[in-house]
Amino acid sequence: MVVTIVGTGLIGGSIAIAMRDQGLANRIIGVESNTSHRQRALEIKLVDEMMDWEDAVRVSDLVVLSIPVNDTNQLLPRIMNLVDKQVVIDVGSTKDPVCLSVKGHPKRGRFVATHPMWGTEYSGPDAAIKGAFENKAVVICNREQSDGDAIELVESLYRSLGMHLLYMDSAAHDLHAAYVSHISHITSFALANTVLEKEKEEDAIFEMASAGFESTVRLAKSNPAMWVPIFMQNKENVLDVLNEHISQLRKFKSCLEKENYEYLQELIEHANGIRRILK
Amino acid sequence: MVVTIVGTGLIGGSIAIAMRDQGLANRIIGVESNTSHRQRALEIKLVDEMMDWEDAVRVSDLVVLSIPVNDTNQLLPRIMNLVDKQVVIDVGSTKDPVCLSVKGHPKRGRFVATHPMWGTEYSGPDAAIKGAFENKAVVICNREQSDGDAIELVESLYRSLGMHLLYMDSAAHDLHAAYVSHISHITSFALANTVLEKEKEEDAIFEMASAGFESTVRLAKSNPAMWVPIFMQNKENVLDVLNEHISQLRKFKSCLEKENYEYLQELIEHANGIRRILK
Repeated sequence: MVVTIVGTGLIGGSIAIAMRDQGLANRIIGVESNTSHRQRALEIKLVDEMMDWEDAVRVSDLVVLSIPVNDTNQLLPRIMNLVDKQVVIDVGSTKDPVCLSVKGHPKRGRFVATHPMWGTEYSGPDAAIKGAFENKAVVICNREQSDGDAIELVESLYRSLGMHLLYMDSAAHDLHAAYVSHISHITSFALANTVLEKEKEEDAIFEMASAGFESTVRLAKSNPAMWVPIFMQNKENVLDVLNEHISQLRKFKSCLEKENYEYLQELIEHANGIRRILK
Repeated sequence: MVVTIVGTGLIGGSIAIAMRDQGLANRIIGVESNTSHRQRALEIKLVDEMMDWEDAVRVSDLVVLSIPVNDTNQLLPRIMNLVDKQVVIDVGSTKDPVCLSVKGHPKRGRFVATHPMWGTEYSGPDAAIKGAFENKAVVICNREQSDGDAIELVESLYRSLGMHLLYMDSAAHDLHAAYVSHISHITSFALANTVLEKEKEEDAIFEMASAGFESTVRLAKSNPAMWVPIFMQNKENVLDVLNEHISQLRKFKSCLEKENYEYLQELIEHANGIRRILK
């Protein structure tokens, strides 16, 4: 199978590594607009060659779009215009807008909307790692709008990568993604800014910071080029969750101000309920 | 050396394991008010025997207080009343109130206020682990108020556990701890409550939750018996940081509401500055 990876960074690069490891691709073409990433992806052999997207799409069996979600929505309809029997997938963190971008397209059936639930706070070709997707979930959205053979290829691909498949309506996906991913990034960015704003003694943080701090703040290293478009596209859901989150924080604030430690205890006990969800 | 560990849970238990591993204690006595923890700590041999605190203090060279910080402030002055040449340390997450609790005590010099910067979201004897403190920092507060030989013993102990020593005024410690530890716990508790409140489809979270979600929410599993007293004792600092954090979150909210994506980009780029602090 000839595979094109559009965007040879963290996710696209890790998919390239996994597909090669599994013997799923005998030729991997990269499409990359960032000059230094293009060079680096070739150097570390994430891809066999680099091409323009039009040429790459024409010679491929599978096209993987792993670029910021706003770019995906621009490029996807143009790719679909060139598609004959190829299968095209995206791997973005929002799914409703991308499905809308090709709604009613004569080749809509060749597109499969997917979201592998894996990522790190790093980006670029050097962030790509082996075994990234093993034992992780992948969400496939609006399955019924894709051709049967396209779905089969994509299911088989993700299963080969060791992933378990979830099926969801794209609107439901975007709501859940706001809860399990997007809000975590906002709280982490805001926490980093809180500390950087008020705590001028960076040495003290650096030396005292423990695993707890690191785990709540590490997502704040994430790339704005990827995250701004996600927040733009999922604005309504993210705002709903963010409003609720601010109101939950205000409850903690009020407990402290009023020295209502019984209610503080209750809030923490309620939060402990997350043990039901996180093993 | 005969060592008494008051509170044989996550921290006390891990100290017992480390001291035994390093051959620093030839007898470890436990003091534990929780009946099932008392039994369990003996079963898994965290300690050699259990005693009442008065008897244990009398026969010990070193007493380690690893109980909730409010209990520490109650018990520490009573322990100091019994102390002759023994060294007493606490390991709590607030340092100013505990120092205040023995201020002017005739035996103040035998006490060393410490905070090993390590913990997990779990508690009890079974949460204790081997090698917990290796390559972590420990803060020693108000060093000048402790006797020279007491400081030497404690420094040598923590160095044997593989820790690097920081020295700080207790008030400065509590301010920094609000930033690098206490606020992370509040955001995590509030994030858990946000998700539990609004997202009724727990199965969807469970299946989609990825490493990013887990890392920002895992601290929400933490024990309220430990954390309510910390927030009580560090109320002013925690409120300052919490107010700043809510105001930072409101900036993200305002960007989304006003579709001001340039400022959103700036906020995220600013947050990326945390890379300077977290390797």
